[in-house]
Amino acid sequence: MRHHARFHPRAAAPAAAALALLLAASPGCAAPPEPAATLPPALAQTAGELRSKALLSPLAFSLLRSLVTEVGHRMAGSPQDARAVEWARARLSELGFDRVWTEPATVPHWVRGENTGAITAPFPQEVVLLALGGSVATPDEGLEAEVLRTTSLAEVEALPERAAAGKIVFIDERMERTRDATGYRKAVAKRGGGASAAAKKGAIAVLIRSAGTSTARVAHTGGVRYAEDVPKIPAASLSNADADVLEAQLERGGPVRFRLRLTTRTLPDAQSASVIAELRGREKPEEIVLLGAHLDSWDAGQGAQDDGAGCAITMAAAHLIGELPARPRRTVRVVLFANEEYGLSGARAYAEAHAAELGKHVAAVEADLGAGKVWVMESGVAEPDLPKVEALAALLAPLGITAGGNEGGGGADLRPLVPARVPLFSLEQDVTRYFDLHHTANDTLAEVDPEGLKQNVAAYATWAYAVAEMPETFGRAPEKKDP
Amino acid sequence: MRHHARFHPRAAAPAAAALALLLAASPGCAAPPEPAATLPPALAQTAGELRSKALLSPLAFSLLRSLVTEVGHRMAGSPQDARAVEWARARLSELGFDRVWTEPATVPHWVRGENTGAITAPFPQEVVLLALGGSVATPDEGLEAEVLRTTSLAEVEALPERAAAGKIVFIDERMERTRDATGYRKAVAKRGGGASAAAKKGAIAVLIRSAGTSTARVAHTGGVRYAEDVPKIPAASLSNADADVLEAQLERGGPVRFRLRLTTRTLPDAQSASVIAELRGREKPEEIVLLGAHLDSWDAGQGAQDDGAGCAITMAAAHLIGELPARPRRTVRVVLFANEEYGLSGARAYAEAHAAELGKHVAAVEADLGAGKVWVMESGVAEPDLPKVEALAALLAPLGITAGGNEGGGGADLRPLVPARVPLFSLEQDVTRYFDLHHTANDTLAEVDPEGLKQNVAAYATWAYAVAEMPETFGRAPEKKDP
Repeated sequence: MRHHARFHPRAAAPAAAALALLLAASPGCAAPPEPAATLPPALAQTAGELRSKALLSPLAFSLLRSLVTEVGHRMAGSPQDARAVEWARARLSELGFDRVWTEPATVPHWVRGENTGAITAPFPQEVVLLALGGSVATPDEGLEAEVLRTTSLAEVEALPERAAAGKIVFIDERMERTRDATGYRKAVAKRGGGASAAAKKGAIAVLIRSAGTSTARVAHTGGVRYAEDVPKIPAASLSNADADVLEAQLERGGPVRFRLRLTTRTLPDAQSASVIAELRGREKPEEIVLLGAHLDSWDAGQGAQDDGAGCAITMAAAHLIGELPARPRRTVRVVLFANEEYGLSGARAYAEAHAAELGKHVAAVEADLGAGKVWVMESGVAEPDLPKVEALAALLAPLGITAGGNEGGGGADLRPLVPARVPLFSLEQDVTRYFDLHHTANDTLAEVDPEGLKQNVAAYATWAYAVAEMPETFGRAPEKKDP
Repeated sequence: MRHHARFHPRAAAPAAAALALLLAASPGCAAPPEPAATLPPALAQTAGELRSKALLSPLAFSLLRSLVTEVGHRMAGSPQDARAVEWARARLSELGFDRVWTEPATVPHWVRGENTGAITAPFPQEVVLLALGGSVATPDEGLEAEVLRTTSLAEVEALPERAAAGKIVFIDERMERTRDATGYRKAVAKRGGGASAAAKKGAIAVLIRSAGTSTARVAHTGGVRYAEDVPKIPAASLSNADADVLEAQLERGGPVRFRLRLTTRTLPDAQSASVIAELRGREKPEEIVLLGAHLDSWDAGQGAQDDGAGCAITMAAAHLIGELPARPRRTVRVVLFANEEYGLSGARAYAEAHAAELGKHVAAVEADLGAGKVWVMESGVAEPDLPKVEALAALLAPLGITAGGNEGGGGADLRPLVPARVPLFSLEQDVTRYFDLHHTANDTLAEVDPEGLKQNVAAYATWAYAVAEMPETFGRAPEKKDP
């Protein structure tokens, strides 16, 4: 999924004077470099000071510890979700923002209930599993059937008609560990689409191997997407260790039977809220630099990495900008979106409520890949703005961050901003270990590296300050067909 | 607990001719070196071939995979325990031993039931916990009380009388990660003794921070020991991640309340069995070299490391010795003990049933510290036998194993052999990571390093072959006051 950059700030980096020359010589660069690409020395100096201050700040870790201590997980619609909104409002109010408010979001309200399962033949064993988010329940007494093993969503889709009739389809696909999210994007397809694909072939339930890299005995949850035209069947995810046992029993060739019981429930939609705080710009308050994260989490762990870390990083980054002697030129807005995990409720509500001002959203970034160190900046700007991206990247280079591609940035919550052509950035965390934790019981503070958090705060603060302060803003992003 | 060796085979090692000189020069070595310490060249050559063959053998991993696939965990008295006995008998029979049999053991039968808990105030959160093995149940509706934090068993014991009246005592002691088991031995004291110590001060339940090093959200189980003279109170272990949250809520100074529900039950004792297999010695079949491991496990994980690994290692090691052209001089006996975890039932039954021949047990070792590589050999022999230990150590040196102390070896199952003064050895696994897994849901095959298993098989096979083949055996071990 990643594309290499046209521009390589590592090579170009610190000598600002060399930039123009280098950019002009760079093949494939349509527009001539603009003088604006060189950031004013005062901006660069302040950004550098902010960067160092952030690297020493324990604030993000302290906020994250407060969140997991006082709230814990916070699945959309749960009592904890409401507590999280109060928590965020209170913390942001203490942090000296110019304005803190909430905006309502209607969220689905799915309840996990009991999730149990066991291999019943040939060698009975209980297993660790989790219902996928939104899964329908099994009958109250559970269901039991023979297991049909496949190794990918594509293999399920290619099964003959009714090949899975009356069976439980097991999608036994292992996830590859990668530094970026490509391993996950490949592995997660079966999570959303596996249930309906299996139901089309007559299956009565679907089991997937966890879409995660962990060898720990924890299962990976996340949302299922049911197609409209096929029966909705229960869907659950097995821990990798238990998927190994099921695979080993199936290897012997004889029939393997499995019992699944999920007492999930979907309740009426609930009310939640995104929590928003801003530092008003001193010159162009109507121009907005958006720092996003999401406040909700799955319920398996504490939501410390996903996305407590993103909340803590963006809150701390903006707070540090707010401690500068003067507000930046433009407004810096932190948006902690409601319910990213199960339908982007807060993100959609935000885009709708702020439709009139999206044209003035000059750039947006979301922190939603955990607490590993940021290693690459991706952008999604119009070609003439690439020198500005290059100048931003130079400010991030001391943090070990390279410039990635310009194919578009953003996290899931920024997708609703795409039609308004908001320039989207990604400051991507190294996710080598993230998918050991993400959406599992192991997503806890105990697994968060405080040093990683500090580097993140430095990256997000530096980026946001520079974008809010630079003399000229970005033009609108190129149009995208498939946001 | 570890003492440095008088002898350092790494320094002394491969040049057998240099041994006598070195030993003679070694201070504190009372007896003059005996010529017998130099092993016959044919023995050393065969041991070396066995060692190399073992390093290439996938047998132990294959046995372990078979055990976790066909049986899984196997807590004393459970249906899986009985299946494990059948599994071991069948596998050992296939492996070409001269004799395979079972010996009955009466085992306690404790059932875990449901184990749940939550902080109820000030910030409600469900937590991950496990009842300690043997814990009494809470009332069926659970119990709820204020938490009193302490940081060690000693601190509980030092509390004023009735200081914990009506409260839940929380023993919040962190375990240190060490290469040998010293970190665990220190941390585990609270697990056995915490409940009764807290009950003496009036507590209605005890919670301990897991006696393990894992940051994963899994709790560590293991047996509780109730004193006779105080009320038995429910005892549970919190995952480290959840202990962190409880600690953080307590730090704020206000009262913290906790709800605990354990539906544990103690059923009438059950029948289980130790499974035994031997290669009859070609010259002195009545002299026995014992390779021990235990067949039972706790129920949280698969018992892959504890002690599936030990079973697989000793089975494979003895099998490889059985594949040599001739049986060694003495009998090599593999004993897979019933119920080590919750009372040493199999070990006690063995010592009783074999009382008459314990005097002919020339040496014993137990593999019960997981599948990490063996790094040190400990011994417990009479002083005149130290040169023989030295000679054994030289055979293990190519595996990266050093000689440790002579303060006594052995695993828990070998303790009943101490009164018979059986020379006990330890081939100790590196446990740096073991206590991340031990007694938790994460004790699975997914966490076992196949290369570590191979090195173990090489160590145990080499040791057992050499002890069974050496011309002169050990004398009886020094008397011990406190076995």
